[in-house]
Order: sequence, then C-alpha cells, then structure tokens
Amino acid sequence: MKVVSLTEIEKVLPNIDPMPLIEDGFVDYSAGKCTIPPVGELLMEKGDIHIKYGCSNGGDYYVVKIASGFYSNNEIGLPTSNGMMLLFDQNTGMPAVILHDECYLTDVRTAVAGAISAKYLAPKNVKAIGIVGTGIQARMQLEYLKPVTDCKNVVVWGRNVQKAEQYKSDMEQKGYSVTVVTDLADLCEKANLIVTTTPSEEVLITADMVKPGTHITAMGSDTLDKKELDPEILKMADKVVVDSVDQSETRGEIMWARKAGMITNDDIVELGTVIANGGGRDNDDQITIADLTGVAVQDLKIAEAVFKGLS
Amino acid sequence: MKVVSLTEIEKVLPNIDPMPLIEDGFVDYSAGKCTIPPVGELLMEKGDIHIKYGCSNGGDYYVVKIASGFYSNNEIGLPTSNGMMLLFDQNTGMPAVILHDECYLTDVRTAVAGAISAKYLAPKNVKAIGIVGTGIQARMQLEYLKPVTDCKNVVVWGRNVQKAEQYKSDMEQKGYSVTVVTDLADLCEKANLIVTTTPSEEVLITADMVKPGTHITAMGSDTLDKKELDPEILKMADKVVVDSVDQSETRGEIMWARKAGMITNDDIVELGTVIANGGGRDNDDQITIADLTGVAVQDLKIAEAVFKGLS
Repeated sequence: MKVVSLTEIEKVLPNIDPMPLIEDGFVDYSAGKCTIPPVGELLMEKGDIHIKYGCSNGGDYYVVKIASGFYSNNEIGLPTSNGMMLLFDQNTGMPAVILHDECYLTDVRTAVAGAISAKYLAPKNVKAIGIVGTGIQARMQLEYLKPVTDCKNVVVWGRNVQKAEQYKSDMEQKGYSVTVVTDLADLCEKANLIVTTTPSEEVLITADMVKPGTHITAMGSDTLDKKELDPEILKMADKVVVDSVDQSETRGEIMWARKAGMITNDDIVELGTVIANGGGRDNDDQITIADLTGVAVQDLKIAEAVFKGLS
Repeated sequence: MKVVSLTEIEKVLPNIDPMPLIEDGFVDYSAGKCTIPPVGELLMEKGDIHIKYGCSNGGDYYVVKIASGFYSNNEIGLPTSNGMMLLFDQNTGMPAVILHDECYLTDVRTAVAGAISAKYLAPKNVKAIGIVGTGIQARMQLEYLKPVTDCKNVVVWGRNVQKAEQYKSDMEQKGYSVTVVTDLADLCEKANLIVTTTPSEEVLITADMVKPGTHITAMGSDTLDKKELDPEILKMADKVVVDSVDQSETRGEIMWARKAGMITNDDIVELGTVIANGGGRDNDDQITIADLTGVAVQDLKIAEAVFKGLS
C-alpha cells in the first residue's frame, strides 16, 4: 500500500491547478452526481477528528479523509492539525494511495474554495482584501486569491496584535501592502472582499459593520460551536451561497442564522449551482456571503489530482 | 507512518488472546465509557464501505476502521472484502499505525464476539454446533468457539450444497464431525448452539424451527437490508442480547423485530452488561439470541493488541 509523505505531496502541488478541478467537483456535487454521507465526528477530551468521505458517482476513486485537531499539541511542540486522505478504487474497493498530507491538502482545498467563492461573488473592483485571523488559512486564502484579483492591499485583524504584525511582515515580503487594524469595523470599512478564518465561538463581525458592495467568505466556522458572523448579516445579504446545504443544517454560519430564524433554505444557493447556472453577484452594491464548511468532494478532487501527479 | 501488512499481523495474532480484551471492551462500551459515533456508510454502485471508529474515553488510542465489500470482485479474482484499521494517539491525534489487515482482524474480532456470546448464553451441554453458512465466518466462528465448548459435532447448512460439502471436508480435517443438512429445520433440531453467518436478505430460520434450550448468535445481518431470523423468534426468546443497542436501531435482526412490533428496548440487554452484571442464560431450557452488528470497540481492542504485539 503506497503511503505518500507531505514532502512528496509538496513536490507535486506546483504542477497542479486545483481550482478548475474543485469547481467541477462543486458542480457535480450540487447536481446530485456525488455520494457524500454526513461528516463523521469523534469528539474526545483532548481533541477531535472529522471524517469526510464520498465519491463522484461512477468515478475512478472514493476518498476517506481523516482530519484531527488537538489544540494543546502546541504546548508539546506538535502541530495542532493533522490528517491524511485515503483514495480507494471505486470499482474494487482496493486502496490506491494514502496521502499523509498532515492536513496540508485540506488547507489547500479550503483556500481554493475561498478563491472560487471570490471568483463568483466578489465585487469587480476589490479595493482591499480584509483578512480576519492570522493563521494558516489567513495566509493561504490570500495566496490562492491571486488568480481571482490583482488587489495587493490587505487589511488584517487578529485577536493577538503581535501575530497580526508578524502576518503583516510575512505578507509584505510576498508583495502585499498590509494594514493591521484592531477594530473589525475598520476592516469592514476599508475592505470589500473579506475572508474570515478564525475558530471563534463568538460573533466577530456585526451587521452594522458590513457596507454595501462587500463580499464575505466565512470559512472559519465548520462545527457546531464556531461562528464568526452576526446571523443578521445573512438576513441582510443579497446573496448567501454555501458549499453544501446539507452540511449547513448542522454546522457553519448558516446553521446559526437558521436557528435565529434569519434565513431558510429558500434564501441560500449552493456554490456548485452558481458555478453551473450563474446566480452570483449582480452588481457592485450587493452584499454577498459564502459560508464554507468544507465538502468531501473537495478532498476527492485534490487527492485525485495529487495521486495522478505522482505517476 | 508505519503500515503493517496482513502477513505481519498474522505472525502476531497467535501471541494474543483477544477474548478477554474484547470482553473488557464490551463492558466499557455498555458502561458508557466509550465514545463510538454512528457507523459511517458509503453506498456505491459496485460496493460499499463501512467506517467504524471511536475510543475508550481516556485510553491510549482511537481507531478508525475502513471496511469494504465489493461483491463482484470475485469475478476478477480479487477478494470481496477489504479493509484497514488505523490507530491514532488519543492525546495528540498523531497516527500510531495502519494495520492493513485486508479485513482479517474484522473477521477475528467478529468470531471472538460470537464466542463471547456463546460463553454467556449457550446451554451448558452443547449437543451440536449449528453453522448457517459456509464462508469465512462459518469457519472462524467454529474455530473461536474452542475455548467455550468442547463440542466437536457440527451441523452445517449452506445455500450451495457443494460449498457445504467442502466445509464438511475442511472442518473434519480440523477434528470436527460434520453433518451437512439441506433443511434448516434439521439443523435447529440437531444443534442447540447455532451461529448464523450469511448475508441473507430473506429470513432463513423461522420461529417454528427453534426448540427450547437453543442459543442463536446472529452475526450475518449488519446492515439495513440483511436478515436471517424470523422476527417472531426474538419475541419468543427468553433473552435477547445485543452488542450495541444504538446500532440495533438501524441494523441487524433487532431492527427488523422492532419494526415488526415484536420487541422494544425493554426486551434487550447489551452483551457488555451481561458480562459485567450477569443476566445471561438461567437454565438449559431457555431460548437465547445474541444479535451482533459489530462495534468499533472490538476493532479498537484487537488493533491495540496487535500494535502492542508488534513492538
């Protein structure tokens, strides 16, 4: 059984353009051409795992991804996130490959989904990109937005100002012009393409902060507990797009907005439907939201691409 | 990441006594000391997978088992069942080992659960062991019953008589005296410890066949579609024991009996509770049933034992 290390995976990634593959994945998913069971969850004292798995019906492979978060690993010098993606032959069930990506491919496909959301929903003229958070996704979302916008102005907010300053320094080395703000209202004032990337369990952005002509991709909240946006924002938005309506029943911003009576399934549309049929942003004054919780079809597409890239 | 092949696993198994370990697992499970999420299922055109996963709370590891069934693999010379068990450190989420057992450890832990059921429920004097089916479990259940009963008389029934004759020949080489029957009523007449091991989707044993003083372990049915016993049998039984009440809501014989209004949760008790607190067979006239669908705690215990045996 072939096990591929992160080092090997990293060598293959520059040869892959995952964006069109993952767009196709979302389209197939929203067209009902995939079998994606509910996310498996094991919640333990010191950490938790999520199992995302499924297939594109009649495709070559199915994927099982096991991703873990053990937040006290920091204290012992281990990464808090870990994981692997397993591909199996859809005709025989025989294992094809284990990609021991240590969660990196999840980070990539998550950043790619952010870029796809921005491609279809961000205003034409992005005056500044607002990044909420300073971690891995705060960096990768920015990197993967490159094919979508030329904008190099970034406004960043972090709970920890020191980390925000580090983010500024790191991103400026990559050619961005970064402003650190300590008030999220400032960020929403300055930026019209905002990506929220934190594991916050408290609302960070309130409705009064959000200006017309703003797009927000909310990718931090992917469990029952996490939320970053005031549910009121989803009510006032002109378009609310989600990667998976099914998953939004039990996780993410839309779950909270639904619970608060702010939104129903009639008010939301899947990203794959927008890609296939249109229905994205109509003009530069609309407020649009993309709520991403991460769907196994993304894992399938990135794992297949890496596996093919190996051979 | 360490991957252990079936050949290596087979070398370790003779040094392990999984029965007490799996008994402990059932006890912990029934005492609420484990976290075992619902079984994950991915149903595809040519096959399906089940993901069983969980942990003993505060234990060393958690397990994720991926098991597949691709029934047309036979036609291309591949095994129909496949699988692997992955152990991860419960304190850090770091992968400990991948046991690429190709489903063999599932077969072992399933046979062990059958033996444990017989230990607590079979009549004292086993006149003959009745085996329904002729496949891997038909063989392994018999093998693993050795520590529980000295009985060497076996009555076997198979849909395919040729396979039943082969079974007879193979098992007689192992020291058993085997009678092939073509009528399940005959089997129920001759045997008082019966193990059903088929993937049948039709009732095989009807209520009128079952005599007082019989124990039946039904381990074939583990999905929504499979059943081997007339639900009436579960109603007339003096004791109905199950490995997991939760899982019996959606799979196994008890699900069917529940649907037919023959049984409620008040009528069933978990195997772990019987092991810990008693409540097994009271006398040699009772009819007892054990309905096993396979619980992740069994996978955890066997995987941990093999992993420890490797080092």
